[in-house]
Amino acid sequence: MADFTQGSFTLPGEAGYEDLTLRMAKKWGADVIRDSDGTKLSDEITSAGYGIYSTICIIRADNAWAKNNMDKLQQNFLMSIPVVAESDTVVIPLMQGYFKEQFVVNKKDDPKEFWQVFDRTTGEEVGLDQWSFDPETETVTVTDVTPWHKYTVNFLAVRIWEEISMYNHITNDWGNKEHLMATEPRYPETQENMIRWLKDWCEKNPDTTVVRFTSMFYNFAWFWGDDLKNRSLFSDWGSYAMTANPLALREFEKEKGYKMTSEDFVNGGEYTSTHNVPSKKYREWMDFINRFVVEFGKKLIDLVHSYGKKAYVFYDDSWIGVEPYGKRFKEFGFDGIIKCVFNGFEARLGGGVEGVEAHELRFHPYLFPTGLTGEPTFAPGGNPKLDASKYWVNVRRALLRKPVDRIGLGGYLHLVEPFPDFCDYIEEVANEFRLLKSFNASAEPYTVDGKVVVLTAWGSLRSWICSGHLHEHPEVDLTNILESLSGLPLDVAFMSFDDVLEHGIPADTKVIINAGWQGSAWSGGDYWKNADLIAKLTQFVAEGGGFIGVNEPTAAAANGTYFQLSHVLGVDRDLGSKKCIGKYQYRVEESSFVTEDTKNIGDSMKVVEGVYVLNKDVKVLAEKEGTPVITMNTFGKGCAMYLSSFRFSLESTRFLMRAICQVSQNTKAMDLYICDNLNTECAYYPAIDKLVVINNTGDEQKAVIETEKGKVEVTLKPFATHIQ
Amino acid sequence: MADFTQGSFTLPGEAGYEDLTLRMAKKWGADVIRDSDGTKLSDEITSAGYGIYSTICIIRADNAWAKNNMDKLQQNFLMSIPVVAESDTVVIPLMQGYFKEQFVVNKKDDPKEFWQVFDRTTGEEVGLDQWSFDPETETVTVTDVTPWHKYTVNFLAVRIWEEISMYNHITNDWGNKEHLMATEPRYPETQENMIRWLKDWCEKNPDTTVVRFTSMFYNFAWFWGDDLKNRSLFSDWGSYAMTANPLALREFEKEKGYKMTSEDFVNGGEYTSTHNVPSKKYREWMDFINRFVVEFGKKLIDLVHSYGKKAYVFYDDSWIGVEPYGKRFKEFGFDGIIKCVFNGFEARLGGGVEGVEAHELRFHPYLFPTGLTGEPTFAPGGNPKLDASKYWVNVRRALLRKPVDRIGLGGYLHLVEPFPDFCDYIEEVANEFRLLKSFNASAEPYTVDGKVVVLTAWGSLRSWICSGHLHEHPEVDLTNILESLSGLPLDVAFMSFDDVLEHGIPADTKVIINAGWQGSAWSGGDYWKNADLIAKLTQFVAEGGGFIGVNEPTAAAANGTYFQLSHVLGVDRDLGSKKCIGKYQYRVEESSFVTEDTKNIGDSMKVVEGVYVLNKDVKVLAEKEGTPVITMNTFGKGCAMYLSSFRFSLESTRFLMRAICQVSQNTKAMDLYICDNLNTECAYYPAIDKLVVINNTGDEQKAVIETEKGKVEVTLKPFATHIQ
Repeated sequence: MADFTQGSFTLPGEAGYEDLTLRMAKKWGADVIRDSDGTKLSDEITSAGYGIYSTICIIRADNAWAKNNMDKLQQNFLMSIPVVAESDTVVIPLMQGYFKEQFVVNKKDDPKEFWQVFDRTTGEEVGLDQWSFDPETETVTVTDVTPWHKYTVNFLAVRIWEEISMYNHITNDWGNKEHLMATEPRYPETQENMIRWLKDWCEKNPDTTVVRFTSMFYNFAWFWGDDLKNRSLFSDWGSYAMTANPLALREFEKEKGYKMTSEDFVNGGEYTSTHNVPSKKYREWMDFINRFVVEFGKKLIDLVHSYGKKAYVFYDDSWIGVEPYGKRFKEFGFDGIIKCVFNGFEARLGGGVEGVEAHELRFHPYLFPTGLTGEPTFAPGGNPKLDASKYWVNVRRALLRKPVDRIGLGGYLHLVEPFPDFCDYIEEVANEFRLLKSFNASAEPYTVDGKVVVLTAWGSLRSWICSGHLHEHPEVDLTNILESLSGLPLDVAFMSFDDVLEHGIPADTKVIINAGWQGSAWSGGDYWKNADLIAKLTQFVAEGGGFIGVNEPTAAAANGTYFQLSHVLGVDRDLGSKKCIGKYQYRVEESSFVTEDTKNIGDSMKVVEGVYVLNKDVKVLAEKEGTPVITMNTFGKGCAMYLSSFRFSLESTRFLMRAICQVSQNTKAMDLYICDNLNTECAYYPAIDKLVVINNTGDEQKAVIETEKGKVEVTLKPFATHIQ
Repeated sequence: MADFTQGSFTLPGEAGYEDLTLRMAKKWGADVIRDSDGTKLSDEITSAGYGIYSTICIIRADNAWAKNNMDKLQQNFLMSIPVVAESDTVVIPLMQGYFKEQFVVNKKDDPKEFWQVFDRTTGEEVGLDQWSFDPETETVTVTDVTPWHKYTVNFLAVRIWEEISMYNHITNDWGNKEHLMATEPRYPETQENMIRWLKDWCEKNPDTTVVRFTSMFYNFAWFWGDDLKNRSLFSDWGSYAMTANPLALREFEKEKGYKMTSEDFVNGGEYTSTHNVPSKKYREWMDFINRFVVEFGKKLIDLVHSYGKKAYVFYDDSWIGVEPYGKRFKEFGFDGIIKCVFNGFEARLGGGVEGVEAHELRFHPYLFPTGLTGEPTFAPGGNPKLDASKYWVNVRRALLRKPVDRIGLGGYLHLVEPFPDFCDYIEEVANEFRLLKSFNASAEPYTVDGKVVVLTAWGSLRSWICSGHLHEHPEVDLTNILESLSGLPLDVAFMSFDDVLEHGIPADTKVIINAGWQGSAWSGGDYWKNADLIAKLTQFVAEGGGFIGVNEPTAAAANGTYFQLSHVLGVDRDLGSKKCIGKYQYRVEESSFVTEDTKNIGDSMKVVEGVYVLNKDVKVLAEKEGTPVITMNTFGKGCAMYLSSFRFSLESTRFLMRAICQVSQNTKAMDLYICDNLNTECAYYPAIDKLVVINNTGDEQKAVIETEKGKVEVTLKPFATHIQ
């Protein structure tokens, strides 16, 4: 039998704690030791025979250079707070409300080239000759305005504190430690310095085997406010807001023949959130930035390779422009990708990237005193073992469906010392990971036939992710759905509305899921005013396809309906304009295939007020507060279900599996390699005839599984994995 | 002292129950006896020396004529159910889902002149040459359609059962009793017959002193379905849907030079609901119908007058086109108006009509075995005395503010016999009404200075009413607000957005209330995309005005905000597009002037999800489920409040009074002629120095009232009225 106690594990080492580092490396079977933001490795560690990952964040790596080149820092557009005019002149303070340690007004470039002033009452831009900027007071004065209208300025701000560094600094009370700045790599001088710096770094770090880029150049959007009661003014894991700067804007215009305006980024103060349907222009900007990031990024990776080192990329933080699911990602030449994970969908996100050899997951908890929301982890009151076991349960089921190559931790290793139970548990997890990896390495798990397609405005570019972690926006239905799907025996694909419009719906599609609030990239917003899209989906279901709509699926108020596939779903939503239109008085079905294992699943759902059934043929499987929350409708040869919301749980995961079987009219799929007990799940690897059964709870569980060779009965200890 | 035991009371008499009729007439102090739908008066009653009201419903009065003139019945447009095309041809059954006893397809007039076929997937009309109607199968076949789009037909239907008659017939199981039909008065032949019939009627009914029209010609919209689970397909108390017919449509086009299309009525299946913002075209149609109703109605009234009889109009049922708050109402020459009332706002609605001498309220319960929702009233299990006392409490407070001249009952008198406590109670109520009327007749009640203006799309045309009764749509915030306002010591006015745009805000306006869901006539819908409107309201508050916004006030998603007066209110609503935009973390105020008497009023409010405060200056007076439900903001010299909902109660009424005093910065108004105990209210008549204190509950209450002459302390029995 193979040795499952060693390898595929990255340990965060820490200078000054050499003994501990080497002891834990042995205990956890690490083959690689890494540094982290705020820690260093000593010679004793780097020369101990382990592979060495070194994290570098190239944009903030050379702060001395940054200080001398403050005109080459990264920038972005900000919108000033709206000011109501009380006469025909209005004075607008630009920086009011913004965190002065993060932003300064760009006073170098001509405001008239990039800034815009808007009458936000009419939505019209104010003429360039009507306003002037006073650099002294940092105000814009607008003349000939309409009294009692409100006005804002879109202006360029220079960022003087790199956000991840800023967050870590403030979270860990780093006091007087230098503020690191993010340099803008589009300037030739910056590129030259980055190459020089990286070369120098490679030469000075001969023990490093893997350079871990954290990540490339542009962080996800994170605008801070100066009021502690509203610190995070704009925060979006997938937004390109922080890629705008004069040079890029000019180059874009030169290349495309048209301009990105400040308003394309500011968008009336809503900025460019991943949750919103992207404009065509914004998608082109993303593509423009992605091309640059790949082109210049490749130079850095080539340089790393020239020193005989590997280059990995961290799929977080400054990942904007990297786009691991984009068409150019493989061109970087990265050897590996590292995803930090709290949940199963993130394991799939990391594991599903093509064009790299190694997929690594950085587990949680991060070795910091506190977690992301300030709760104690490696500090008095914390229970890191419990945290780790919950995260492992989240992730394990996803790893049964799609393997990764490595796992690891990050942070300050010395913090684990007072938590020996945590140290023991990580040893267990690492061994179990290696065992499971060995199955997956040689075999595909059994999967129900046919594709389950998640249909959004982003499609495959945002495979397995909406924007950020589940705990950041737990109310995003699609993130919850992805979490359930991440461990189910299904073939999941991601498709955009543009894909459907251009190429139609692939023949192997069995079920389409559309889940989100009206106007979101997940539901589709104005895409649902496109008659071709509606017709294609209508035909898909009429001809036998399955459709699951969640929250406000296919929603766009037009032509007397709100859900544009209301005829397919059998339900619509009335926001008030149909107050006087009669609503069918349904009765709730007593039982159904879909809710067989989770009779009360409807109680856990959030009501979407105003949802009503269209006619007597629609089956209501559950209602709440007098409103249907789960419905089913036969449409032509196909079947559609409506769910008012979706929140991840073991129950909802089972319910979703049944719903997918129901709408794809493949209910018998529930009779093979599915645990009877929804607290447990299993994966079967036909090629090696291995069945893995997992207990997703902290209690002992029994499970019966129908297999092709008959029933298998298993009893599982809390959180246990059973293999036969 | 005057006699308060006689007069101003209309009793429903009933042939066959002559003794009872005359006994109750004496007990209740009736001066007038009336008939009702389904009852007749005998000679013994009509000759007993009472005034005699006779109800006539002129459109259904001569059913024999109607049967012989089926081409002159009333009509309306219906939309067929949407049918999804599966090929390039689609066949649409017109009548599917409609109640066949109410509607038949108009097969007489050329469908191509009036009907329209729509592709409801694109919203485009299908060319006239692409469809044909088969009168045999009552289907429309549409050719050259786009497969998988859905199609509907707007068609003219003739109504063969007058709706009130239909409702009463079905509710009271009238079995084989003839179905009455509504004739269309626009045809000269119909007019001729109506005049002939009315003349004949007047001659045959010499004892009748008052002809009570029920009402004029067009009922409020009421489309029935054939499925008992969805009977009321469209029901709107203020809609002109049932005024459309070929003759009217042609006359309108001739007069205006442009056409009302079927779609102007059908509106994608939403029809023309009073709750929705009316289009300019629809308002013109209303005006066109109103002019006709007044012109021809006046001829009938003149005829009644020529017989020495008075003419009253019932402000319900077939009231469409009558418009008692319209500019032409006084031209009818009516002598009186009768409003049926459940609530205080309806008492104000009836009492506030100008241009008639007599205002009468028809009280509830109606003398029917069951109430409007089928619950027993004058039947086993019913408690009509309790019903009557609740209604009286609702209405009494409104009568203290604005008097009416008469009250009465309706229905089958014999049903009261088994309920002597009801009979005694009505005697009490009638006496109390006469006493209160005597005060009001000679004096105005004390009222807080300055106007409280309700701002809607309808303005004064829909003074004191949204659409229908409170119990029909108890979730309409504005109806609830009107109910509270109906008994408060305030000078209430109604203003439309067009009024504001054309004439500005009158100088005596202290507070403006805007209350409703986005898109509704009450909130304003696209009116809030008008920058002038926003500016005028902004200026009003900035210069010292008060503003109260409820639910989704000033809502129209535009220019980065949802509430267009968010800068005034200090709150806005995020429907998801600002998911990644930071929201200010407010704290809830511990106490406030506004919530002083109703600390927990926030608990009774409905959360409007996504409402957030804009900045630190906004005061949150209450939150629920983590969302602000009552907020206050100082804007310039003025003040604005946001309430997430409003439901009438004694508590919410007090809260509203305080909110109005707060935003108008007149908090000291609470210190004069306001009961300290919110279960009681009072009215003071300075001219006659009378103070009336009422107990709005079924429990004994104590009240202290600050008056100009000092404190008054009163103890009130359940439901009692105290006068000093």
